[in-house]
Amino acid sequence: MPTVIEYVLSRLRDIGVGDVFGVPGDFSFPLNDAISTQPGLRWIGCCNELDAGYAADGYARLKGVGAICTTAGVGELSAMNAIAGACAERVPLFHLVGTPAMSAQSARAIVHHTLGDGEFDAFRRMSGPVVCASAVMTPQNVVRETERLIFEARHHLRPVYMSFPFDLASRPAQGHARPIEPPGSDPDVLRDAVEAILAALDKAKTACVLPGFLAARAGLRSIVQAIVDASGLPFATMFTDKAILDERQPAYLGMYVGRLMNEDVREFVESRDVVLAIGSLFSDLNTGAFTTRIDPARLIAINDHDLTICGRRVLGVEMADVLAALAKRLKWGGGFVLPRTDGISRSAIGSGSEPITAAALYPRWADFMRSDDIVVAEAGTAFMGLGLAELPTGVDFLTQSLWASIGWATPAALGAAVAAPHRRVMLFTGEGAHQCSIQEISQFARLGLTPVIFVLNNGGYLIERLLCRDPSLAYNDIAAWRYAEMPSVFGCDGWMSARVTTCGELDQALERASVAETGVYIEVVTPPYESPPLPLRLQEMHRARSPRR
Amino acid sequence: MPTVIEYVLSRLRDIGVGDVFGVPGDFSFPLNDAISTQPGLRWIGCCNELDAGYAADGYARLKGVGAICTTAGVGELSAMNAIAGACAERVPLFHLVGTPAMSAQSARAIVHHTLGDGEFDAFRRMSGPVVCASAVMTPQNVVRETERLIFEARHHLRPVYMSFPFDLASRPAQGHARPIEPPGSDPDVLRDAVEAILAALDKAKTACVLPGFLAARAGLRSIVQAIVDASGLPFATMFTDKAILDERQPAYLGMYVGRLMNEDVREFVESRDVVLAIGSLFSDLNTGAFTTRIDPARLIAINDHDLTICGRRVLGVEMADVLAALAKRLKWGGGFVLPRTDGISRSAIGSGSEPITAAALYPRWADFMRSDDIVVAEAGTAFMGLGLAELPTGVDFLTQSLWASIGWATPAALGAAVAAPHRRVMLFTGEGAHQCSIQEISQFARLGLTPVIFVLNNGGYLIERLLCRDPSLAYNDIAAWRYAEMPSVFGCDGWMSARVTTCGELDQALERASVAETGVYIEVVTPPYESPPLPLRLQEMHRARSPRR
Repeated sequence: MPTVIEYVLSRLRDIGVGDVFGVPGDFSFPLNDAISTQPGLRWIGCCNELDAGYAADGYARLKGVGAICTTAGVGELSAMNAIAGACAERVPLFHLVGTPAMSAQSARAIVHHTLGDGEFDAFRRMSGPVVCASAVMTPQNVVRETERLIFEARHHLRPVYMSFPFDLASRPAQGHARPIEPPGSDPDVLRDAVEAILAALDKAKTACVLPGFLAARAGLRSIVQAIVDASGLPFATMFTDKAILDERQPAYLGMYVGRLMNEDVREFVESRDVVLAIGSLFSDLNTGAFTTRIDPARLIAINDHDLTICGRRVLGVEMADVLAALAKRLKWGGGFVLPRTDGISRSAIGSGSEPITAAALYPRWADFMRSDDIVVAEAGTAFMGLGLAELPTGVDFLTQSLWASIGWATPAALGAAVAAPHRRVMLFTGEGAHQCSIQEISQFARLGLTPVIFVLNNGGYLIERLLCRDPSLAYNDIAAWRYAEMPSVFGCDGWMSARVTTCGELDQALERASVAETGVYIEVVTPPYESPPLPLRLQEMHRARSPRR
Repeated sequence: MPTVIEYVLSRLRDIGVGDVFGVPGDFSFPLNDAISTQPGLRWIGCCNELDAGYAADGYARLKGVGAICTTAGVGELSAMNAIAGACAERVPLFHLVGTPAMSAQSARAIVHHTLGDGEFDAFRRMSGPVVCASAVMTPQNVVRETERLIFEARHHLRPVYMSFPFDLASRPAQGHARPIEPPGSDPDVLRDAVEAILAALDKAKTACVLPGFLAARAGLRSIVQAIVDASGLPFATMFTDKAILDERQPAYLGMYVGRLMNEDVREFVESRDVVLAIGSLFSDLNTGAFTTRIDPARLIAINDHDLTICGRRVLGVEMADVLAALAKRLKWGGGFVLPRTDGISRSAIGSGSEPITAAALYPRWADFMRSDDIVVAEAGTAFMGLGLAELPTGVDFLTQSLWASIGWATPAALGAAVAAPHRRVMLFTGEGAHQCSIQEISQFARLGLTPVIFVLNNGGYLIERLLCRDPSLAYNDIAAWRYAEMPSVFGCDGWMSARVTTCGELDQALERASVAETGVYIEVVTPPYESPPLPLRLQEMHRARSPRR
């Protein structure tokens, strides 16, 4: 008979969790022991719990699910921001927490990793707003609670919290349960909704698709592609949705960022009779700081468990069911495709000893990418530049663009590399964000993984300098580090490492990196205010809106 | 008329906050701007918010109060574990959070750093269990809410949370308020309690004092010393309370750790007719894993706002009032002092090429300390070793021994150095804990601070290896780093740095460090299972209690 923790781990393994990220602790020893010894599971130690949470998030974006294991109080709260990020970004994570023994809890003992007040449930409750379900796992409830939590995590695409009291985690699990079937749509509502969508599209002279990240999280990319293929409708994407569908296909219009950039894409999308948004989010970033203007009467928005058809909200329908019906029923319309908008010039300028301007850098980075790369882009100017690059077929573009927590990308790239060890993982990060979590580069080396890491060094928090009142204020300065020496001190032996300050050096480094069979770490030094166009447009808008600042 | 944030900052400055630790963010620009430009205040940027929180905690332990500034969501949740630590350890911290504009909140706009659900108050509510008060600061409430939060933080010695909506933070503060006077004791209850304590002591043939950390947090160390002086009572301390009073005075008995160590101290304390505990906490660590046995009928425990006299709980009395009355009334008893127990042999063994054993290391570290040093010790074996060292007069010994979050000590040492730039700050940390937050060593250099840092490298999480089921399990391994090269890559130019693996190298490094005028960073490599006695005693006890493991 499996123990409580063994039962949970075996079910997580069934659904795709092969690796658990974390930091061990004395209250979580039963969990740490089981993860380390159970067949088919691997313990991936990180330097701290926030990073472990980020890594699990990156892993889950590729594998569909991820897991992090922490110890009570100190560990779980350290990971809180990563859990919240997964909640915002709709990533199903299982947060396994080892807690003090029930015997200590009942006695209200004053033990370490508590507030010293005899309370033991406060931290689980604190996580409430950033998970979709939680449970204290016991021998009596573990079997059915595990099924409930698995269902909730995958249905809501959000994290769940499971705690394991020390004296119960290794006791035998009792009882039986079967996996919970996801609920289907209400058949009448589904039929009506699909007919209404088809009627709206049929009536429309023009239409386009906005394929969204939520369709990807729900594992529905291929059916969204089938809808594009069947209908011949063109599509644009917003930032959060970048590369959800192949950007090299003729139906791709380019990035839609409101009035900030790509005016022809905006004009095209906003003038359609119908815009079919599939799992998109109209956030500040995605809407170009709320400058999109799609008439609600023309918008069909399909969400994971509901939809809105031209202003009418419909509940009780599942995205998968709606998309399946549409893919079957949609007829080729064709002929809508615009000449492609490409946000990044493909001709790289600059050479020799010239400084690395944005105009020199982003086309080179875009050219460096290959099919099937995994690109992990940190929130900040680099991400805003790369967002406009047209990516090769099969590239996964990972970014935390709603939650936008700096420091996410470095560990998330680790998680991605663990999830897909045979693909090339490329990390693009500003140096300010990289300073949050740089130590995790050491885990790549421990695991024999060989990422390509670009650290954009522009002398501080550039995106903030552009948007704040006075860019010279010291709070946007950061400590000066010797980035190119970091792989060596962190144990990444044999990695290619370089610091480049000119276009010529950059070209040489990229050439070496493209054939490297080791990890690669390149510090790219640019002048301090070198920015791709989007942040500069944001800056203009900020200044126009706040004339006194 | 000051703005909302200016008003708060000026009041924080009044009560001793001269430096605010944090990471900037776009929602907190008004706060970042004000902190950077207001006279008498300094912005101390850290690499991430958890570290900033730890640094503010270290600062507050010396200055009485501290402050951290973060941005909404991502920033505040990253700092959560540090805030919880301050709550557990009774450190008054002001957590200033810049949040989206009230206009965006009212519109339920989907902005970055939120869960994308139009909710804006969830994160403040999440912090509820780890702060003693919170408020959303507006022009209309800022004046009186600031006084309330200052009062609550200092009265309860716990953190408070203040959020600042972007569009209100720079508006003029309205109204007036006066600082809130702390409540006095109920005079009748106080009089009765003091008489009862004096009567119990008078009746006792023998007694001793356990001076506790809470007396220190409340700023009452000198009056506790006055009680010891007036009464002639000897005192022992528990781990959390280490060096609250000068350990070189004749009245000091040594460390009291239950049955784990120092049997003669235990025997002495537990055989007294009365034990007077002043702000102590009977936690798992302090009681030597709950092996102390003080008869409740003999215990007088004075807490910050209540006390217990021989089993009778008394509410409505303030520690300061009780101690003042006792100091005035207590008469010299004298003659109780035992021969001193000293947990660390003062004769350092080992020399030349001999490996650095625990018996070689801890006496050397103890000898290296000087009067008025600030010692910051990370939870783990090193702390448990140092805890038994007798410290020179005037040493402040900072440790997070209840919350015990690894990674705390490195940034806490930064905070201590910022608070007391003219004192020598010494950091003792295991390398596993140091990996959590190593990047903050770069801030010492940015600020021109010159700590002495010892990194104990024993190849993983030693305290966990000792306590877990199988010490060889991989989860207690960590990445192999080149620690001695860290100061250089992190910009600590000119620091003395060394890696020592033998007693001879250690002696040389200590000699150089003792006269260094720069920062010092010494990696001390010991054999993997070298431990001071206390963790070994804990291990024995664990094994005895869990015979099957």
